Amino acid sequence: MKNLFSDTIVAPATVPGTGAISIIRVSGPDALSISNAVVQLRNGKVTESRGYTIHYGSVYSNGTLLDDVLVSVFRAPHSYTGEDSVEISAHASHYIVSEIIRLLIETGCRMAEPGEFTKRAYINGKMDLAQAEAVADVISANTSAAHKVAMNQLKGGYSKELEALRTELLEMASLLELELDFSEEDVEFADRDKLLSLLKTTLLHVEKLASSFRQGNMIKNGIPVAIVGAVNAGKSSLLNALLGEDRAIVSSVEGTTRDTIEEILQIDGLSFRFIDTAGIRESTDQIERIGIERTFNKIDSAEVVLGVIEGIKNPTDFKADLSLILDHVKAPSKKVIILLNKADLISQDDINNFVTLANSIVTSIDIKYIVIPVSAKTGEGLEQLKKVLSEGQKELLTAESGTLVTNLRHYQALTASAAALRRTAAALEGGIPTDLVAEDLRVAIASVNHILGRDLGLDSDTVLGNIFAHHCIGK
Amino acid sequence: MKNLFSDTIVAPATVPGTGAISIIRVSGPDALSISNAVVQLRNGKVTESRGYTIHYGSVYSNGTLLDDVLVSVFRAPHSYTGEDSVEISAHASHYIVSEIIRLLIETGCRMAEPGEFTKRAYINGKMDLAQAEAVADVISANTSAAHKVAMNQLKGGYSKELEALRTELLEMASLLELELDFSEEDVEFADRDKLLSLLKTTLLHVEKLASSFRQGNMIKNGIPVAIVGAVNAGKSSLLNALLGEDRAIVSSVEGTTRDTIEEILQIDGLSFRFIDTAGIRESTDQIERIGIERTFNKIDSAEVVLGVIEGIKNPTDFKADLSLILDHVKAPSKKVIILLNKADLISQDDINNFVTLANSIVTSIDIKYIVIPVSAKTGEGLEQLKKVLSEGQKELLTAESGTLVTNLRHYQALTASAAALRRTAAALEGGIPTDLVAEDLRVAIASVNHILGRDLGLDSDTVLGNIFAHHCIGK
Repeated sequence: MKNLFSDTIVAPATVPGTGAISIIRVSGPDALSISNAVVQLRNGKVTESRGYTIHYGSVYSNGTLLDDVLVSVFRAPHSYTGEDSVEISAHASHYIVSEIIRLLIETGCRMAEPGEFTKRAYINGKMDLAQAEAVADVISANTSAAHKVAMNQLKGGYSKELEALRTELLEMASLLELELDFSEEDVEFADRDKLLSLLKTTLLHVEKLASSFRQGNMIKNGIPVAIVGAVNAGKSSLLNALLGEDRAIVSSVEGTTRDTIEEILQIDGLSFRFIDTAGIRESTDQIERIGIERTFNKIDSAEVVLGVIEGIKNPTDFKADLSLILDHVKAPSKKVIILLNKADLISQDDINNFVTLANSIVTSIDIKYIVIPVSAKTGEGLEQLKKVLSEGQKELLTAESGTLVTNLRHYQALTASAAALRRTAAALEGGIPTDLVAEDLRVAIASVNHILGRDLGLDSDTVLGNIFAHHCIGK
Repeated sequence: MKNLFSDTIVAPATVPGTGAISIIRVSGPDALSISNAVVQLRNGKVTESRGYTIHYGSVYSNGTLLDDVLVSVFRAPHSYTGEDSVEISAHASHYIVSEIIRLLIETGCRMAEPGEFTKRAYINGKMDLAQAEAVADVISANTSAAHKVAMNQLKGGYSKELEALRTELLEMASLLELELDFSEEDVEFADRDKLLSLLKTTLLHVEKLASSFRQGNMIKNGIPVAIVGAVNAGKSSLLNALLGEDRAIVSSVEGTTRDTIEEILQIDGLSFRFIDTAGIRESTDQIERIGIERTFNKIDSAEVVLGVIEGIKNPTDFKADLSLILDHVKAPSKKVIILLNKADLISQDDINNFVTLANSIVTSIDIKYIVIPVSAKTGEGLEQLKKVLSEGQKELLTAESGTLVTNLRHYQALTASAAALRRTAAALEGGIPTDLVAEDLRVAIASVNHILGRDLGLDSDTVLGNIFAHHCIGK
């Protein structure tokens, strides 16, 4: 193949640390000759080796044996990057890996930028941009659902969907071109009808994709669950109890604002992002009201609201607390779970009474909610809570992964494309001259091209820079 | 080859975490067939692939694509373990790696114990025990000197030395056998002279090896440097200043006792292990005296003593502090460096006076020391200190790596061997009957065999268990 890159890059491809094996990856026009100079094969030469073969050899530094290594040879275009590539497998020692990389650099390699191997795979035509972006998603996916969506994108299922959309848009552009060619004659109106019909179908398609971002984002980044309740209702200890049982698969992430704590918990193949909020109560204190206001915003952006109320309250206070929580749930579609906390301290009769009481509360927008008695102390009810959470989101597990947008950049491009198509439709309906209509259509096409990394033009450096900077070194 | 093991083991071979590539290692009689069932190759079958070839394939879990992987095939005996082995290269995602391992286990693999691949390599005759132990040393070596010694041991240079020693011992045993055969006749005394001469040469050889442990251990675990001085002399801030300049290559290790802090700093290819001690002063307080006593023990076990004295003291106090430090250095061979701290606060004249004063102090055992003015605050003198430390140990860098013992187990075996040889010599000189002499010689031989892992007999499980438990998973 034609070499699009003239330099040869190197990076460790495995996670740094002390272990059994480390891989050092080399790619570029001189990958074989540089590796051949650094590694002395037991038999033959790297430069004369066929692709997909492994060779035993030794690396020396100043005449001293640094390590015995295995060299895996990949020849262009049959490699990850599409270039000649070599993977050197050495002992996973910090000293050995850094010395081998030093020798490779002395012999002509350049240290790779983050994501540069994948960037080369994209530029060399081994994958489109959406696929290249999926590489990072595949690596970081921690649930079966997130993995499935990312893998579908990596393998091109998602791109296929976008390519189909692009074909529709290009077809419209052709029709418009045709109209431009014949605009002196009287074929305009017949074509406009056909165009408008096609346009509306395509717009629906784009809007469906854009709206899948809500689901896609939940699968990728976790389903947002706001934990709300009065200051002393036991929200934090309940969260700890919930996470504590699965400590090994719990991780803390920085909240979107500094005043909230977010914790990720995996339940049945899905990630739930628990957002602990400031306690809510009626307050006249200015500062406190800002905190409470933020809590209400969390409720708005959450998919699930966990309302925590102490079971040891008297019925009047319980009702007041419950109303306070429900008053701030503004959408009837939101899933609301009321947790009757400290259930270990009250009788089954009390619990039954509270549930009956809770069910008697009528909210203005008819919110459906269920009540679960729980105890942070004894763990009672936590398994039921997990089950309810998981079952409430099970449609995410069966979602068609090919049609899910998980990437904010793609979502923004699709939103821009939809807006341009809406302008196109309005223009067509309003009888705007074809050449102005064409301009909007071009924007709609460019947005979809952007996702796939086609015709990035002047944006190229910025777009690629942003995308690959978030990849890891060596990938 | 004959299969010594009937089960097939699996483990991740790369450091866990999020990165570009993870390797999953499979070894054992069913390595190829199990991998063939788990990975669907694009072309052909794992079971029909030649050794040292790489194959592209896909792993599915419940009909869903888990990952596209590369499969590297190694056929017995040409593999690390000597068994049929496969390395599966996947995306470095926790989810993917654990799923692939799960599938391999479901298909017949067993999760490997720590160090089990290397243990198999030893048992299958790919390396002796000293070499197998060196694998862990190679991986953890952080300096060129430690790496060189470990690599020599891994490649058999060290074993060759021990095999030569073993040959000498076996030769002696043959002579003794001969004597036993002819013990009725009068050949005894002529053979005993020859035997005694050979024995003394061998004893020297064993003692030389055993005594190399001091150097070997310093290369492997760091050169112990005790930092001593009065309570407020600035020992800790000086240590921080010394470490702070190379923060990236500094690591904390737990001190041998809880009352000391040990920090490792690499200087010019060697590790120095800095041991901060309790401040020393004349004290009548019982508890404090215990702490000070421990400090003196640190001085005894250290290779280098850094005595820290404030430069802002008056000459009388300076002299008293210096004498207190020097009084507790009990060996003239110990390297002593007096650090005149807070040098930024005093004039060059003051510094010169202190140096003259320091040089005028005569200690009972004629300790040689040098004085370096330093400042934890400005960093003055720290480079000179590092240079002095490094040059004081440079013989470690030129030490013959083949003759260095770095392993405590080997040191203990060699010490036992030397003791047995000394008993043998005394017995021969004392005219003890040959069969009793032979018993001690057998102990001397068994100790050397133990190092190489020959004829471990009943000890086998314990010895191997201890050794490989400290290896990492996947190696």
